[in-house]
Amino acid sequence: MSQRNLTLLTDLYELTMMQGYFKEKDANETVIFDAFYRSNPSGNGYAISAGLEQVIEYIKDLSFSEDDVDYLRTTGLFEEDFLEYLRKFKFSGDIYAIPEGTVIFPREPIIKVIAPIMEAQLVETALLTIINHQSLIATKTARVVYAAAGDGVMEFGLRRAQGPDAGIYGARAAMIAGCVGTSNVLAGKMFGVPIKGTHAHSWIMSFPDELTAFRHYAKLYPTSCILLVDTYDTLKSGVPNAIKVFQEMREKGIALTNYGIRLDSGDLAYLSKKAKRMLDEAGFTDAVISASNDLDETLINSLKIQGATINSWGVGTNLITSKDCPSFGGVYKLAAVLDKKTGQFTPKIKLSENAEKITNPGNKEIKRIYNRETGKIIADLICLTGETLKESDSLLLFDPIETWKKTYLAPNTYTIRDLLVQVFKGGECVYDSPAVMDIREYCKKELSTLWEESRRLVNPHQVHVDLSKALWEMKNQLLDSYHYNNP
Amino acid sequence: MSQRNLTLLTDLYELTMMQGYFKEKDANETVIFDAFYRSNPSGNGYAISAGLEQVIEYIKDLSFSEDDVDYLRTTGLFEEDFLEYLRKFKFSGDIYAIPEGTVIFPREPIIKVIAPIMEAQLVETALLTIINHQSLIATKTARVVYAAAGDGVMEFGLRRAQGPDAGIYGARAAMIAGCVGTSNVLAGKMFGVPIKGTHAHSWIMSFPDELTAFRHYAKLYPTSCILLVDTYDTLKSGVPNAIKVFQEMREKGIALTNYGIRLDSGDLAYLSKKAKRMLDEAGFTDAVISASNDLDETLINSLKIQGATINSWGVGTNLITSKDCPSFGGVYKLAAVLDKKTGQFTPKIKLSENAEKITNPGNKEIKRIYNRETGKIIADLICLTGETLKESDSLLLFDPIETWKKTYLAPNTYTIRDLLVQVFKGGECVYDSPAVMDIREYCKKELSTLWEESRRLVNPHQVHVDLSKALWEMKNQLLDSYHYNNP
Repeated sequence: MSQRNLTLLTDLYELTMMQGYFKEKDANETVIFDAFYRSNPSGNGYAISAGLEQVIEYIKDLSFSEDDVDYLRTTGLFEEDFLEYLRKFKFSGDIYAIPEGTVIFPREPIIKVIAPIMEAQLVETALLTIINHQSLIATKTARVVYAAAGDGVMEFGLRRAQGPDAGIYGARAAMIAGCVGTSNVLAGKMFGVPIKGTHAHSWIMSFPDELTAFRHYAKLYPTSCILLVDTYDTLKSGVPNAIKVFQEMREKGIALTNYGIRLDSGDLAYLSKKAKRMLDEAGFTDAVISASNDLDETLINSLKIQGATINSWGVGTNLITSKDCPSFGGVYKLAAVLDKKTGQFTPKIKLSENAEKITNPGNKEIKRIYNRETGKIIADLICLTGETLKESDSLLLFDPIETWKKTYLAPNTYTIRDLLVQVFKGGECVYDSPAVMDIREYCKKELSTLWEESRRLVNPHQVHVDLSKALWEMKNQLLDSYHYNNP
Repeated sequence: MSQRNLTLLTDLYELTMMQGYFKEKDANETVIFDAFYRSNPSGNGYAISAGLEQVIEYIKDLSFSEDDVDYLRTTGLFEEDFLEYLRKFKFSGDIYAIPEGTVIFPREPIIKVIAPIMEAQLVETALLTIINHQSLIATKTARVVYAAAGDGVMEFGLRRAQGPDAGIYGARAAMIAGCVGTSNVLAGKMFGVPIKGTHAHSWIMSFPDELTAFRHYAKLYPTSCILLVDTYDTLKSGVPNAIKVFQEMREKGIALTNYGIRLDSGDLAYLSKKAKRMLDEAGFTDAVISASNDLDETLINSLKIQGATINSWGVGTNLITSKDCPSFGGVYKLAAVLDKKTGQFTPKIKLSENAEKITNPGNKEIKRIYNRETGKIIADLICLTGETLKESDSLLLFDPIETWKKTYLAPNTYTIRDLLVQVFKGGECVYDSPAVMDIREYCKKELSTLWEESRRLVNPHQVHVDLSKALWEMKNQLLDSYHYNNP
């Protein structure tokens, strides 16, 4: 991504609003924007944050080239003094974010931008594009990996991804959330993640017959010999020919370590069981049986229940596009404006007929509350910045809508963790993104902080995201005062 | 895209197969691969081809850098002689393709690659990624534009796109298929397409009140003054304040040309009708009423039926992700292998239990048959290369499965057009991609060659894609001979 400058990757209205702020306001006042999302994709009980490294690269690279400025001039919308401002544009603000691979929940700020309004406004679109995409694919992957119940899941979706980036950064997100490898070679190079793959039907078809094709493949890749068995007839031709080749390898004294078959069509439950029996009878009891045909978490789950003997899953289209829910729905909303006179942030709220679309005002932090004994998440608490909680105090949590729903936590029975970490300070990046495989390890631990009831695929328990008393009161005062002012 | 080299944007198995061909075959034999798709997305009656320009750029740029080769070496899968081959790799084949913006149908080759097998194999993944993505979004857009029935549709989806490319090239595809503009500034710059937009809720919220925010916006953008009216209360606050501002503009003698309101939440049918009445009563009968809240073709259609007075549509998430069907399903299959001795292509077929997954063998062309009088498409006929049809002859079309379904065309009642054009010859590009706005014009004409019954959104008439008698016979001989050889 750093090879391309994405400064113009923005909605036009960000630029017209920027010029508006430039022309019509006395000051480029400091504001706070929160990026958050409203509901988990695919009916899941949580999401996985991903994309922060690319957001950081984007912010670092922000600058309008002469070419960009010339282009903007041609639109006829912008005046020279504003274009001159763009020429010198540099991001100068602070950014806080939840680290990649973290389990996240609706309505909590994933990224908080504190910056002059013109800068904070510009970054909205690209920031959302990146976070929405990668968090979506990471969350979908977590579902698929959960369904595979310990079997390896490979990301095989590049050809069905929504363009090159969707393939590249989708593979990145899939690795973060637990895939064991990707077929995407460029993603392997860029992110240092394992790449996987075998051969296609065209390999088989380019030889006079299937057996010859298998033999050539086995000769060349004896230590990674997964043969695709469905080109002509899986049980009558593919599996018997594969067994013949494995027998020949055994006779030649070749150690059979990573070998087996791939099923890519037909009734995977039936075929895998039949193939397993044939392989077992020939003495190949540890052969890999991999499958790869329009799989998703529901199908994998169903195949497991049917006793399919598949132990390796190649998941393509449905993962790389998050087919049942192909967008994440992250938004970016104004939360506060700095009052220069007082030096305090004035909280801002967006109203809506729809209660869940009303924003949380003010400068906020997120405190994650864990059960001290189990390490599992009890709830997330959105607080105002500066509020302090002590683990040695008791803590009363309450539902922000149905406020009579309360949870009392006794002192020293819980631990608290601040989720937002600073990534930019005065325009300078103060955060090192971990390697993708390290984020993957961290994500695995994160998933273990969820109760099993929040991980299940259907009707998961929804983790509570509560507001601190101070934030709840501020929000309700703002709501009341608006209605008072607008009878 | 040309700023990045995408040579490694491929599935690993393309490279392992390439090495296989390199090591295990006597020759880098010339083959034919067809890229085609099996069913129209979203239950549509056709698709729109898009992405060819980016495929051409990708093919032109193909070359492995030292860095790429070094990375491949680290995988331990490749031998030095093969890596040396990659270092010198250059595409040397021929490519034929259906021009962008063309109406296309299932099972016909959109792109035909004739090249040494190693080269033809390498390009599979990226070619499919690009074509699948852009054709998907173009097809979805054609549906949305159809539902809007002459109103302008703007592409507003960047923030929900699956990564930067999905936003950029999705906007390109949306413009090809009939959007009047995009919010995506980078797409505007790259493709010379109109960019559109107004302001967000944050603009309103950053001012002390809505009226002040509107006044400032109107002052700055008097000739493009679409005011977002739902930040606080659409009918009690937003629309009255907008009318006040339009009145002030009128009083100042400002010509009101492109002005109006944008609805972004609530009941769009109800609100648009109420708003229209309020605007009309104040004398603003030509105000634009635009809407933009999770719209798609079904919702637009429903709003039209309900008499909503919206005349401009901003469509985001559902268009840029093709939400109901987020993948196109294009595949790339071996169709023939050149026999060096005879100089003839030996046709290849992929069998499947599933009749529609059986491929069409051989070196093929597509002839589109139009009704000479109406200019509407009668059918597409997939022929073997070299077959000649004369418009002065009669033509008998028949269904390739239910062969008793026949259509007889009398001489001189139809016209024939070859759909595939050559884009690469011996590795050199021989095709100039038209400008996106020119493809858009062409696409509009293409859509007019469809009968209305094939354009409707639900249960459209499926246009026939037939096989020539010669191709049909070759295919059935291959099918028979396979079963004969494998009793």
